[in-house]
Amino acid sequence: MKVHEQLEIQSFDQSQITTKLKFYQEEHRRLTVLFNITRNISTELKIDKLLLILMDEVKKALKADRCTVFLLNRDKLELWSKVAHGEREIRFPSHLGIAGYVATTGDVLNIPDAYADPRFNREIDKKTGYHTKNMLTFPMRNKLGDIIGVFQVLNKYEGSFTHDDEQLLDAISVISATQIENAQLYEEQKTTFDSFIETLASTIDARDPLTAGHSHRIALYADAIAEVMNMSPRKRDVLRYAALLHDYGKIAIREAVLTKNGRLTVEEYAHIQEHPAYTKSILERINFHGDYRSIPVIAGAHHEKIDGTGYPEGMKGEEIPLESRILAVADVFDALTSVRHYRDRMDFERVLSILDRDAGTHFDTDCVNAFKKLKLDVLIKILEYDVHQLLDPKELKQVANYNVRQLLQARASEEKNGEEKIIADIFEKYYNKKYSH
Amino acid sequence: MKVHEQLEIQSFDQSQITTKLKFYQEEHRRLTVLFNITRNISTELKIDKLLLILMDEVKKALKADRCTVFLLNRDKLELWSKVAHGEREIRFPSHLGIAGYVATTGDVLNIPDAYADPRFNREIDKKTGYHTKNMLTFPMRNKLGDIIGVFQVLNKYEGSFTHDDEQLLDAISVISATQIENAQLYEEQKTTFDSFIETLASTIDARDPLTAGHSHRIALYADAIAEVMNMSPRKRDVLRYAALLHDYGKIAIREAVLTKNGRLTVEEYAHIQEHPAYTKSILERINFHGDYRSIPVIAGAHHEKIDGTGYPEGMKGEEIPLESRILAVADVFDALTSVRHYRDRMDFERVLSILDRDAGTHFDTDCVNAFKKLKLDVLIKILEYDVHQLLDPKELKQVANYNVRQLLQARASEEKNGEEKIIADIFEKYYNKKYSH
Repeated sequence: MKVHEQLEIQSFDQSQITTKLKFYQEEHRRLTVLFNITRNISTELKIDKLLLILMDEVKKALKADRCTVFLLNRDKLELWSKVAHGEREIRFPSHLGIAGYVATTGDVLNIPDAYADPRFNREIDKKTGYHTKNMLTFPMRNKLGDIIGVFQVLNKYEGSFTHDDEQLLDAISVISATQIENAQLYEEQKTTFDSFIETLASTIDARDPLTAGHSHRIALYADAIAEVMNMSPRKRDVLRYAALLHDYGKIAIREAVLTKNGRLTVEEYAHIQEHPAYTKSILERINFHGDYRSIPVIAGAHHEKIDGTGYPEGMKGEEIPLESRILAVADVFDALTSVRHYRDRMDFERVLSILDRDAGTHFDTDCVNAFKKLKLDVLIKILEYDVHQLLDPKELKQVANYNVRQLLQARASEEKNGEEKIIADIFEKYYNKKYSH
Repeated sequence: MKVHEQLEIQSFDQSQITTKLKFYQEEHRRLTVLFNITRNISTELKIDKLLLILMDEVKKALKADRCTVFLLNRDKLELWSKVAHGEREIRFPSHLGIAGYVATTGDVLNIPDAYADPRFNREIDKKTGYHTKNMLTFPMRNKLGDIIGVFQVLNKYEGSFTHDDEQLLDAISVISATQIENAQLYEEQKTTFDSFIETLASTIDARDPLTAGHSHRIALYADAIAEVMNMSPRKRDVLRYAALLHDYGKIAIREAVLTKNGRLTVEEYAHIQEHPAYTKSILERINFHGDYRSIPVIAGAHHEKIDGTGYPEGMKGEEIPLESRILAVADVFDALTSVRHYRDRMDFERVLSILDRDAGTHFDTDCVNAFKKLKLDVLIKILEYDVHQLLDPKELKQVANYNVRQLLQARASEEKNGEEKIIADIFEKYYNKKYSH
């Protein structure tokens, strides 16, 4: 887009002026559309949401009924998109169909009558029940000119797509590509960081065979409890990282002590008890920002107890961050229900009676109560996290409306009704099952 | 900015039309400016560069001589900025001066005659030699209305700043704030990730007291060698991560073996030699993107040798990634020059003769040659990384024009000239000095 020179108004006659006025009005509309689109997409760094906003904006700008934005994945040679309504993703090989043709050649395809064009695939309309009249398919290029995706706009409300529409889409293309690439960089960085922390957590757990998978499970339990307690998504994200990292300090504990079979000496026990303090001091060296700054404190306080008898600080009650109080419940529950090489899982009633007994002294009673509201499908999926591919989806669905408290009632009931029997049996099957693998 | 309704041109007389035309021309200029600014800032996710681009764009848009953009750091209660020419940063308490007033109150300050206004601080002009005539100081607000910074525009070329300038800056403010916040999020994420990896590297090193600081130093040596070899900044970034993570696999090596004093058995030695393979397989579980995908392979090949006698793969020559060949030199040099509890550093000539002897069998000769081109100030700073605050900047400057090869010549010379004596003495002082700390 060029800056058009200002005109000397005086030197024009009426018809020239009205022509100019029309031109500026049209340019004004076009720039306003572009500016608004820019503003609306520029705050979004989540790819999925960004695509939905973009599709909506393009649809409005071109006065059309539908718009799909496909992104090109060069590694997988795929085009993919989000479907605006419903969470479904579309993926197909990047050379297929009209979108694939445009992604491959960079040509613009403006098809005024879809059913009269041999390139149009009627099968898609047949499947979806939609009737395509006209369509504009346009490559999305970044500043370097590389094609990073494709716009497909369907059914202009009046007439078919014009050259002006193509020009507008050309300008939208560059802005969109920039924001999409920013969002991709941001998301890539985040997924790398997340997978890094998850890998770290499992290598820490792996040092002690007794705790394999522990950090992942505690992260899942803590998040599930936090959800029951209506914690905000941001805080849950922080809690998840703190959970994954809570045992990081174990790296500073001598292996011989960590993996000792048999009773620990007083000294050895004291050495192991140093791990949350190490967790805190190591994590404090990381340059966390914003809400994430509380991660070292949260992770370092997972062995504190409500009555002040925990370690390393001996914090009491609400001095202990809520997130750490959640971790405490998750940590103990996972320790008690883990399958150890020398024994099966502890009896479920006994596990729960320990949580109940220590609520108000070790544990925050609210957190224990929240734990008892966990739905059974959620609970089973975490308990059996390392073999989650062996779970039966139908059975999970059957128990999805029942929580831990209701399970305990069902198990305790002497004369179980049908429902009670079903949920008790399904839970028992997974809780005490020996998988053959 | 609102979309103004399209006008029915026919119904206006000449003067109405020319008024409308002027309006649209002005709007057109304004929107074009905004759109261009948006396009120019939107591709930049590095805060420093973004600030420089933004200051330049605002200056042009408002037809003024200077523009500074200050960002508000709410944690430190500071305003800070980059100075356009030179690398210097400005930082001051966020309540001071005119910028501080605007950041605190959110008021716009349009001062047509700076020297007639008591709020203007003449001292700054005195120091800089600049003569401020008029100034517009404007809060930068994000979409939520929070002030995140301040624009300060100086010396409009013609007249003083107008209400239109203020309105234009108001629109620029929101776009800028969005991009700045995106860039901040991106940079925060990156600094968190970087410090996480650095912390991880030092916790890995700390498991074996003999290798304290090793991962940091190997990253510095490797980067210095890569710089001599003209490797691209992107590849150097990848190499730096690979260097920091090259010994990650040691987490899977039994502590008793890792820290054993005295001779290792054949089995123990074989167990230690498993660490690069562990490094690779653990890092492969991380979801790296783009160029970073080569990190596991690079890090996992740091014990390969040019002649194929290395491990774990026995790769030969250029089968070994160049980055790994650099790591091999850096790794061995650091091992030989580390101060161990049972001995001082190995004699420097002996270290270099080992590199020379093994160039072409263990090491890539080009990498060894590049190593010998390292400047001595760089070398000393890495050798003495853990006590870098004790280094004398004057001495470092004195040796900064000499490289390792020249140092060896100087040390070997029987009748040293003045320069040779100086560099040999300074190097010797640091290489074999016992610090009192």
